[in-house]
Amino acid sequence: MDHSENRRDPNAPSDNGISEQDFQYKKVDDKTDKKEEENIESIEKIFESQEVPPWKNQLTFRAFVVSFVLGILFTFIVMKLNLTTGIIPSLNVSAGLLGFFFVKTWTKFLEKSGLLKQPFTRQENTVIQTCVVATSGIAFSGGFGSYLFGMSDVIAKQSTEANDGQNIKNPSLTWMIGFLFVVSFLGLFSVVPLRKIMIIDFKLTYPSGTATAHLINSFHTPQGAQLAKKQVRTLGKFFSFSFLWGFFQWFFTAGDGCGFVNFPTLGLKAYENRFYFDFSATYVGVGMICPYLINVSLLVGAILSWGIMWPLIGSRKGDWYSAEYSSSSLHGLQGYKVFIAIAMILGDGLYNFFKVLGHTIFGLYHQVRDKHSRSVLPVGGRSSPADSLSYNDQRRTQLFLKDQIPIWVAVVGYISIAVISAAILPHIFPPLKWYYIVIIYIFAPTLAFCNAYGCGLTDWSLASTYGKLAIFVIGAWAGASHGGVLAGLAACGVMMNIVSTASDLTQDFKTGYMTLASPRSMFVSQIIGTAMGCVISPCVFWIFYKAFHDLGVPGSNYSAPYALVYRNMAILGVEGPDFLPKNCLTLCCVFFIAAIAINGIRDIVGKKWARFIPLPMAMAIPFYLGAYFAIDMCIGSLILFIWEKIDKKKADAFGPAVASGLICGDGIWTLPSSILALAGVNPPICMKFLSRKINAKVDAFLTT
Amino acid sequence: MDHSENRRDPNAPSDNGISEQDFQYKKVDDKTDKKEEENIESIEKIFESQEVPPWKNQLTFRAFVVSFVLGILFTFIVMKLNLTTGIIPSLNVSAGLLGFFFVKTWTKFLEKSGLLKQPFTRQENTVIQTCVVATSGIAFSGGFGSYLFGMSDVIAKQSTEANDGQNIKNPSLTWMIGFLFVVSFLGLFSVVPLRKIMIIDFKLTYPSGTATAHLINSFHTPQGAQLAKKQVRTLGKFFSFSFLWGFFQWFFTAGDGCGFVNFPTLGLKAYENRFYFDFSATYVGVGMICPYLINVSLLVGAILSWGIMWPLIGSRKGDWYSAEYSSSSLHGLQGYKVFIAIAMILGDGLYNFFKVLGHTIFGLYHQVRDKHSRSVLPVGGRSSPADSLSYNDQRRTQLFLKDQIPIWVAVVGYISIAVISAAILPHIFPPLKWYYIVIIYIFAPTLAFCNAYGCGLTDWSLASTYGKLAIFVIGAWAGASHGGVLAGLAACGVMMNIVSTASDLTQDFKTGYMTLASPRSMFVSQIIGTAMGCVISPCVFWIFYKAFHDLGVPGSNYSAPYALVYRNMAILGVEGPDFLPKNCLTLCCVFFIAAIAINGIRDIVGKKWARFIPLPMAMAIPFYLGAYFAIDMCIGSLILFIWEKIDKKKADAFGPAVASGLICGDGIWTLPSSILALAGVNPPICMKFLSRKINAKVDAFLTT
Repeated sequence: MDHSENRRDPNAPSDNGISEQDFQYKKVDDKTDKKEEENIESIEKIFESQEVPPWKNQLTFRAFVVSFVLGILFTFIVMKLNLTTGIIPSLNVSAGLLGFFFVKTWTKFLEKSGLLKQPFTRQENTVIQTCVVATSGIAFSGGFGSYLFGMSDVIAKQSTEANDGQNIKNPSLTWMIGFLFVVSFLGLFSVVPLRKIMIIDFKLTYPSGTATAHLINSFHTPQGAQLAKKQVRTLGKFFSFSFLWGFFQWFFTAGDGCGFVNFPTLGLKAYENRFYFDFSATYVGVGMICPYLINVSLLVGAILSWGIMWPLIGSRKGDWYSAEYSSSSLHGLQGYKVFIAIAMILGDGLYNFFKVLGHTIFGLYHQVRDKHSRSVLPVGGRSSPADSLSYNDQRRTQLFLKDQIPIWVAVVGYISIAVISAAILPHIFPPLKWYYIVIIYIFAPTLAFCNAYGCGLTDWSLASTYGKLAIFVIGAWAGASHGGVLAGLAACGVMMNIVSTASDLTQDFKTGYMTLASPRSMFVSQIIGTAMGCVISPCVFWIFYKAFHDLGVPGSNYSAPYALVYRNMAILGVEGPDFLPKNCLTLCCVFFIAAIAINGIRDIVGKKWARFIPLPMAMAIPFYLGAYFAIDMCIGSLILFIWEKIDKKKADAFGPAVASGLICGDGIWTLPSSILALAGVNPPICMKFLSRKINAKVDAFLTT
Repeated sequence: MDHSENRRDPNAPSDNGISEQDFQYKKVDDKTDKKEEENIESIEKIFESQEVPPWKNQLTFRAFVVSFVLGILFTFIVMKLNLTTGIIPSLNVSAGLLGFFFVKTWTKFLEKSGLLKQPFTRQENTVIQTCVVATSGIAFSGGFGSYLFGMSDVIAKQSTEANDGQNIKNPSLTWMIGFLFVVSFLGLFSVVPLRKIMIIDFKLTYPSGTATAHLINSFHTPQGAQLAKKQVRTLGKFFSFSFLWGFFQWFFTAGDGCGFVNFPTLGLKAYENRFYFDFSATYVGVGMICPYLINVSLLVGAILSWGIMWPLIGSRKGDWYSAEYSSSSLHGLQGYKVFIAIAMILGDGLYNFFKVLGHTIFGLYHQVRDKHSRSVLPVGGRSSPADSLSYNDQRRTQLFLKDQIPIWVAVVGYISIAVISAAILPHIFPPLKWYYIVIIYIFAPTLAFCNAYGCGLTDWSLASTYGKLAIFVIGAWAGASHGGVLAGLAACGVMMNIVSTASDLTQDFKTGYMTLASPRSMFVSQIIGTAMGCVISPCVFWIFYKAFHDLGVPGSNYSAPYALVYRNMAILGVEGPDFLPKNCLTLCCVFFIAAIAINGIRDIVGKKWARFIPLPMAMAIPFYLGAYFAIDMCIGSLILFIWEKIDKKKADAFGPAVASGLICGDGIWTLPSSILALAGVNPPICMKFLSRKINAKVDAFLTT
């Protein structure tokens, strides 16, 4: 998992966000416990008899049909997560399982009818996986829950600063699709020349990409296929349950504050401070995928903020801030919530930025030094068993180098898209001048390289940190009087898209390398996937936008927390911290330093103790949102924990499938639910929670 | 299970009410599948080495302490069931398991500390079982949900007939305890002389008693004890879950119509017609114990009545009955509901009365004829494998005949209690003249014999049918102007207690026979159990009566449906059917005949088809109450059904334990919940269900 804050990326879990690939990875470890070495050594021996189809045959029509369907599915899920809490777990296992399931069913059907022309290969599976990840990735990097939606007047209204016309750009289907098309393909081209360096020369690990490759390889061995079948069945069961549960809940949500999402499970007092279990299958599933530390950090953050700090600050009402402001005004309590959260996020981001940068420079230095002294040598050191190439590596390298993508394609592609982009973007966002864009595009390839390299080493993509950098730099440059807020947010989008795609694509190349998929077919698949995402994501967002009228409203189900956070970062960058309420800046500084200090301590004490120290980034999320989803996620953790106690093997094998089922079922329910909302079908019943006193009043009112 | 209507008796499931003993029975069958014959043959061989303690040593202090605790537990549960729907499942397995668990834990503890004087034997286990069943049996036969509570003014108020002072007797702790003491012991003495005839001479099967004996025997074999331990753990788990769930629900019940019990699971329209799942762990558990046919019959009855008939009759409002009457008036729609249910219950009861009577006479005729031609011969034919006595039978008969209870004890006991009873009862119920009581006591032993014999043959106790007979006969004799309604209800109590105890006690003797428990220790245990019940049951009822102010109010959680039904039978007997609303009598006749016809068809078509024909008695229960508990029970059935599909063996072994856990946990929660109510602690939150329109109104009201 990760919170959207630091990575877009289903492909990139890390030491602070070990995603389910790692569970999968563990599973592979379990299976190969004894013959681990020889098995990993000989994985290509198992597949030796299977011919690798030429790159064009890896790109089948059925693969893209399946990718399209799954792309829509996952876009819905990611969009829902974007707009509710911004916490997005890695959906790779679900994508892998479902992709495998659909094509396998389809080919089996064809096989029986004798029409099967081409068997289902792991290369094709990789193509699907890549395409789906690219499509649903746009739902994240498109910024529908962050910078893009942060431009809208719904969010702008919540602040008295910079809510004038030139700093507002309301969502519209046309400009969103246009914007995505001109910014999303740049990353693809910027990374092409780096491919061979990263994977063959530097032998970077890319843990997520490696884990995905293991997953796909395991599907295509006989016992792996057997297990996958069972996993798919489990996923299906929980998918149905979760979907039906969402459906059932819907009936009771006629009106605000109705339904299970407002269930004061821990009492009304706790509910007022947003401590309750809201019966969300999604976040229980997310909690099962996220590592325990993340969930505990969320809970600790929630207790610290909603349990201690906000009530304390709230008691200073009239002193620290005027009681006149509405509860959602940034000049009131809301301001403390948002800006302290921003301070922590920035502190954590900054720390990790320098940490990863340090790793990158150090790694590169060794790389270069070693290159001088000897030939190719691994840096990651984990993936390569010895200096000499193993059979696996020989075969993989051979196939990886067979289908090259010419450098000139990359250069011409990058420059032409950059030109188009610089010409079009200022028309969409008037404050974003063309020279800002050119500056971004000059620095972008370097940053993209840094990010791809750092991600390969640490599995940590810093896309959103680079995005925030762009907010501050371009925002300050443009200035308050020239729409600096809008310019900053737009620049963030441009930057994030390039940098995030670069690291994702390299991850995918690693997966392709390990499954013998051709780099060319991967590249085409990415292009098609990105193109699909550029259309699907805005459409899905549009459905949410039209169907749920409380989108972006604080305290509602779809509060899009990061939209407010990003906009306020832009305001902070442009206007400076003067508009913050009393003592807020001091508190922000304290939490900014605390975030850096906690991270530092985590790194100093070593892995053994670090797992008891909460992550500042995760702690910051509930600062603004409340504890409810942290409680959901901790329940998910608890379920997994008990399951692991009872039957570790089964929990490892089926936990991710259960979690994926829960997430997907509830996520896809938003499709019919938003269609119902668009069609004006309202739920019939309100499940309301009243205190005894108010209930007596209501009863008296109803009987008269 | 059985609905209270036809039997009090946890000991007496039947072809229409196969209780969990039968599941247990089945389980025993499963286990002994291959070596069935030899195993059942040799059960006493297994226990041969164990010495049977003398009868006084079978009556240990610890046994009665455990019985007392379990007696209170089960009285709470039975009382809750009495006052909610009147459906009482067989709690024998729970009583057996828990009794075994408590004494086993206690003896193990003593054994470790070296203080154990006497090991835990199956005879002692039987003593506990007998005592608990006797204690909790009073909670049923005491009529707290039927005739006794039917005398109160809460119930009387609901009818305009016979609600004058001389037909009303409000509950009070003193007279209830007195009443129970003078009527509950007669049955014990009336059956003593019959003991040997029924068990040794006639070799009646008593399926429930046999099943209980199998259960107890199995506990005391090594692998049986192992299984029992696991079952206890399962029971404990579900007990805790059910208890906590009850606790959790409590918080949301501030006010009428609040909480999960009013959850319009199937929509508001269905809720208005009492079709909803009310999240009751008790009735889900009850549904798991009851056979599928019962649950389906309940649902069919609910659909027929609340789904079709009541809406149709409701549409005749103003024509068939005056619109002026309140919804709970018997002159309105309520009258149709209650009297059509009574008609079906009477039709079913009458049919079975004559059926069992026929069996009894036929059986006796053969018995006598065979006795003339040869010596002892079995009648049931199922339990005895051959004409000659097996080792089991030899040993059992020998021990059974060792400890005799002298006939003079029985005769003196019966007559002296009858005299005391005839002297005291008219003081409690003035309309019940002493000569009515004498008449009852003259006929009672014959009826007790009939019932005990019939129960031995068919496992069907007709106690409540005999009770109803008394209502009509004594009620009509006393007449409307002399408090006939009260007299009838009191007479019902007297009759039911004798007849029901007679069959129960014989069942217990059968259990004792098969576990080598001495008849004397059984008798003493019954006396102590009954005495405990005579004190515990009124006290528990008193807690409910004081704690829940809506006791007996139609539509409330504790509506005590049979209290109204019994009172109205008495009114019908005394006043005749003239006060019924238009067409009600016609409909009653139709349903009375239908009940007889359906029963007839069930008997004609044979077992194969009979299991698809619903039981009229079960169909009648939801006529008055609605479908909600039928839905609970069907869900219980469904769970068991799916479980059996997945793992039949496990479901058979643990299904009853799960069901018992669910029933016991929720049942025992009523203890703290009533204490909270008595202490004036009100739940804090109301979970309310409003239609969208009303919710909008309420929201508008609350914001102003």
